[in-house]
Amino acid sequence: MHVMVIGGAGMVGRKLAQSIAATGGLGGRDVAQLTLVDVVAPEVPAGFTGSASVHVADLGTEGTAAALVALRPDVIFHLAAIVSGEAEKDFDKGYRINLDGTRHLFEAIRAEGARGAYVPRVVFTSSIAVFGAPFPAEIGDEFHRTPQTSYGTQKAIGELLLNDYSRRGIFDGVGIRLPTICIRPGKPNLAASGFFSNILREPLVGKAAVLPVPDTVRHWHASPRAAVGFLTHAATMDTAALDHRRCLNMPGLSATVAEQIEALRRVAGEKAVALIRSEPDADIMKIVDGWPRDFAPERAKALGFTAETSFDEIIRVHIEDELGGQV
Amino acid sequence: MHVMVIGGAGMVGRKLAQSIAATGGLGGRDVAQLTLVDVVAPEVPAGFTGSASVHVADLGTEGTAAALVALRPDVIFHLAAIVSGEAEKDFDKGYRINLDGTRHLFEAIRAEGARGAYVPRVVFTSSIAVFGAPFPAEIGDEFHRTPQTSYGTQKAIGELLLNDYSRRGIFDGVGIRLPTICIRPGKPNLAASGFFSNILREPLVGKAAVLPVPDTVRHWHASPRAAVGFLTHAATMDTAALDHRRCLNMPGLSATVAEQIEALRRVAGEKAVALIRSEPDADIMKIVDGWPRDFAPERAKALGFTAETSFDEIIRVHIEDELGGQV
Repeated sequence: MHVMVIGGAGMVGRKLAQSIAATGGLGGRDVAQLTLVDVVAPEVPAGFTGSASVHVADLGTEGTAAALVALRPDVIFHLAAIVSGEAEKDFDKGYRINLDGTRHLFEAIRAEGARGAYVPRVVFTSSIAVFGAPFPAEIGDEFHRTPQTSYGTQKAIGELLLNDYSRRGIFDGVGIRLPTICIRPGKPNLAASGFFSNILREPLVGKAAVLPVPDTVRHWHASPRAAVGFLTHAATMDTAALDHRRCLNMPGLSATVAEQIEALRRVAGEKAVALIRSEPDADIMKIVDGWPRDFAPERAKALGFTAETSFDEIIRVHIEDELGGQV
Repeated sequence: MHVMVIGGAGMVGRKLAQSIAATGGLGGRDVAQLTLVDVVAPEVPAGFTGSASVHVADLGTEGTAAALVALRPDVIFHLAAIVSGEAEKDFDKGYRINLDGTRHLFEAIRAEGARGAYVPRVVFTSSIAVFGAPFPAEIGDEFHRTPQTSYGTQKAIGELLLNDYSRRGIFDGVGIRLPTICIRPGKPNLAASGFFSNILREPLVGKAAVLPVPDTVRHWHASPRAAVGFLTHAATMDTAALDHRRCLNMPGLSATVAEQIEALRRVAGEKAVALIRSEPDADIMKIVDGWPRDFAPERAKALGFTAETSFDEIIRVHIEDELGGQV
């Protein structure tokens, strides 16, 4: 099987490629060829024994998608995106990459299919940013998409296109709305959602972290390992059961910040918790107020998608995958 | 006030222009200038006393939208679209007009606003085709959009763009999801939904009509007069109450074909009803099975949108507006 990862240099793309290298495949199917694409050079994961190639390319540029799709991968992961903050700041860039880039890719597949039978599986990462407040207590599978950012708008449009192109048999698409990924590895960043990871990741290695919101804030999480599991399952599942509704709320864990901190206390002790400093930030609180808190992702669960069920588990996954199993 | 109607040669566009001419305005505000745009020449309505101009133009063509928006209308009605059947048959044409055309218009407004303060009201006609089966008994205001046609997909994307451009203050948009318009004036056509109008309009003038589905079929209707009322209200309402959810299910009447026929019997007698001939058509039945049957359009009602509450009323509106008040 030939797998292409567009957005292969991002955190989720890297972890997906590493998982393919580690297992030699995708959901039990051999991956003989791996093509990694991003605007900065993605890294071929250590230990991959098949044929790998790396492309530095921008999906927003005319002709890029056609050249990539001409390689006829069996599975295309479309993870590339301008993130929320940047798409909000730079209107043109967000629409050029997140909307036009996605459409270029889908159109390139249509053109390739017109040249000779070609119907790849396309896995598209959408986001819970397609939803906008006010929310019900739990967001169900049939709740409407009313994004309140340009990023969420662009993802919601990508979902609609994915459905229409799939309905017409141009490709076999699955869209997955990722929860906030926690614990995000790496350094603290300035993303408004960064603190959900910072308050666990930093204390686990003896560093201080800032909590800018009250610990009553509730949010929707899944680990990077769960995200790779979603992508793998979306790439290999039987799509017949999706019918015409190909975009799914992924499972996740709804937890308050207090619940996150209690889990940290259980796993790493009081000393770790003491490293969290409360510094309320009204701007961040205002942004977080507009975010979903809880979902009832019944369809995805019934279709075999799984995620963590406790924050203890999310923290343990981080310790195993990022800290060599040791705190 | 300067009003532009894009799609001014269509049935709803013509009736809107006629209403502006008849009342001299829009929801009580004077219309001094009327600009009618379509791919075939729209007709300036008789009796319009302001300044009128007509443009034969295709929104899908580069530069067209910019030239129109340079006229700086205060209100832009964007009614132009490739209809459902044609957008399904001609993939490229549907996306070119219904998606690219809409985006060209919105981008032209953004560019015009960048040249000097300009924030017009934009009224966009969406459709209940943004919804796809399976449906709840009544479709609520927060039901998700899962279109099952390219036309519905393109309308749903237009809605998302309208929301995002409005949220950013580029224009002041209102999207309205029209029910099936009944009784559609004119000749019977081959649209799958045509029979809902045919079985009333034709018998009212002593002609035979074919009913291709069982009379238990339930559907969602509003008159052409109600549609003009929706457009007028959308153009003049206070949009503050819409917040970030600028697209609305319009009110309408949920009725079975049997209820339509009973209303015809009450208004025009047994002789009219006898002109309806049942000729079941499995293809049409299959299409109709995928359509919404009933809505609970609470938001639109609370915001002042109104429609007919009985089929007797819908038939009387047709008799008044199309048959000079006489059967």
